[in-house]
Amino acid sequence: MAILKNDTFLRALMRQPTAYTPIWIMRQAGRYLPEYKSTRAKAGSFLGLAKNPDYCTEVTLQPLDRFPLDAAILFSDILTVPDAMGLGLYFSDGEGPKFERPLRTEEDVKRLPLADMNSLQYVTDAVSQIRGALDGRVPLIGFAGSPFTLACYMIEGGGSDDFRLTKTMMFQRPDLLHTILDKNTESVITYLNAQIAAGAQAVQLFDTWGGALSHHAYQTFSLPYAKRVMAGLKREHEGRVVPRIFFTKGGASWLESMAAIGADALGLDWTIQIGDAKKRVGHQVALQGNLDPLTLFATPDVITREAEQVLNDFAYDKNATGHVFNLGHGISQFTNPEHVEALVHAVHRASARE
Amino acid sequence: MAILKNDTFLRALMRQPTAYTPIWIMRQAGRYLPEYKSTRAKAGSFLGLAKNPDYCTEVTLQPLDRFPLDAAILFSDILTVPDAMGLGLYFSDGEGPKFERPLRTEEDVKRLPLADMNSLQYVTDAVSQIRGALDGRVPLIGFAGSPFTLACYMIEGGGSDDFRLTKTMMFQRPDLLHTILDKNTESVITYLNAQIAAGAQAVQLFDTWGGALSHHAYQTFSLPYAKRVMAGLKREHEGRVVPRIFFTKGGASWLESMAAIGADALGLDWTIQIGDAKKRVGHQVALQGNLDPLTLFATPDVITREAEQVLNDFAYDKNATGHVFNLGHGISQFTNPEHVEALVHAVHRASARE
Repeated sequence: MAILKNDTFLRALMRQPTAYTPIWIMRQAGRYLPEYKSTRAKAGSFLGLAKNPDYCTEVTLQPLDRFPLDAAILFSDILTVPDAMGLGLYFSDGEGPKFERPLRTEEDVKRLPLADMNSLQYVTDAVSQIRGALDGRVPLIGFAGSPFTLACYMIEGGGSDDFRLTKTMMFQRPDLLHTILDKNTESVITYLNAQIAAGAQAVQLFDTWGGALSHHAYQTFSLPYAKRVMAGLKREHEGRVVPRIFFTKGGASWLESMAAIGADALGLDWTIQIGDAKKRVGHQVALQGNLDPLTLFATPDVITREAEQVLNDFAYDKNATGHVFNLGHGISQFTNPEHVEALVHAVHRASARE
Repeated sequence: MAILKNDTFLRALMRQPTAYTPIWIMRQAGRYLPEYKSTRAKAGSFLGLAKNPDYCTEVTLQPLDRFPLDAAILFSDILTVPDAMGLGLYFSDGEGPKFERPLRTEEDVKRLPLADMNSLQYVTDAVSQIRGALDGRVPLIGFAGSPFTLACYMIEGGGSDDFRLTKTMMFQRPDLLHTILDKNTESVITYLNAQIAAGAQAVQLFDTWGGALSHHAYQTFSLPYAKRVMAGLKREHEGRVVPRIFFTKGGASWLESMAAIGADALGLDWTIQIGDAKKRVGHQVALQGNLDPLTLFATPDVITREAEQVLNDFAYDKNATGHVFNLGHGISQFTNPEHVEALVHAVHRASARE
């Protein structure tokens, strides 16, 4: 493997000193980029793109060719795992992801298999190929959905406003939900370890829907399974620690308990002031975030000011360690790419240590 | 006016001792009740119902005839205010509320009038009529949307996932957003004072979308205007204090600052453990909440256990004051009314003081 030329991102996740604050952007490879849309058109469909390692490599590198980002993230989707558990992922126009066979009955849950890793070879192939194409420019992030977030999609059969079916199962048949979560946990561990073995240099666990739970339900149905994922991951590869990031959107109330599950860093949405979050978690974990993605609809000078605010909120002193700059959630497809460029430069410039 | 027979709710809001923990439910008059659907069918449309004081009175009292709730809430909609500011409220099937004339340009904003109180007489008529019909059974709650939440709808022209137009204005032309917020604030103060004069015995300000903001933006664009509303409200009527409740969905990160704006109580969504919230706000305010509305999809015995958990989380000791039980957001239209009955009885039974 090529020598890593820029390890700023990995160092920040381990709370080591860095020359500046590294930045990457959730969904940095995506629809706001015209070149992504071209590849997507060639591929014919989202799944045609996501299941083809050549296309995945192409779109993963597109944002890096435009902006001096400090990490690449595998282009994929969190629903590849339930798809490999036999649920039949498809995308219906304008309605987002759906499953042909959602989990509704006890029978559905009992016969749910673990993810078939053979059917996920397109993901590990993509990881290897992207690492080759990156040639050590920046580290590559692998990722998966959290066991709870995957369960939401698997039970609802797609997106939801209120997670009515999931919560009905949670209250009426918690044993069934725990069975799904067990199987998801094992599948996610195997999947992320396969990404690490293929070359992912850091991993992020996305708990997109954990924030829909009450305090007690989060502590019962999401966090313990995320903790088991962390405990099951390979710690080192290629002679280097593989840092883990855990992100619960809407999880600001639970930062203390999130900081104790064995992740190296927590992702934050934009509702919490990052300095307040830092006070609450102390030196247990690094923090990633947390600019409101809609800030990118401001003018470049306002974007610069808002980015500086996040940096200043984090850093009581200029030498504070353990910050990875990011948005608080995925970038909007309507974002002007020039504004992303303004953000990346602002973060690098304003955070440069003497 | 009839003597108030049950003032438990008002006493709890003022943190006075009560014989048990009072309960009401956000959207308690609504689509989960078959009798509501009958009235709605007679009225022909949602606005036909909301603009007719007879129908409003009928549906406001329906849940009280079923369940021993401790408060009634005016049946209305927060968007009556922008409608009275000339934006043209209408409901499109399956898409929720819309405005014919959303605020998009500087010209739109400059010529925006304050709410025309004459056109809102149907609301104050409904308040008077409901007070008569209640005949002192329980207190009547009036309400309004927060200046920021109203601005979101007024700018977007309806609901939104990301508030892109609102936030674009916030970042690019904050002066225009402040102008809208000023006008909304004045209109909401006049509107709530008219409800109080007509007989509302407590008021709630719904900041439904404040939680979509970053920490700094919330402190700039939502909270100061909510504070101005509180300062502008008539404090007493009919010889009694009119308590104010302030509710920001998704506001758990900001409780300390919310507690300082002059509200008597804060509404909480279900993501925060209510005992943790109480530790953070101390004795400044009462707390209202905070059961996950989807808990009502559990069986009655599980509903009882979950309600007891919220009561226990709040009460370090059985004599703790200042709790109004509620859901953390509006009740789902798919709720079984018998489950609401189980909840109301569980709260009354489990919280009864010797």
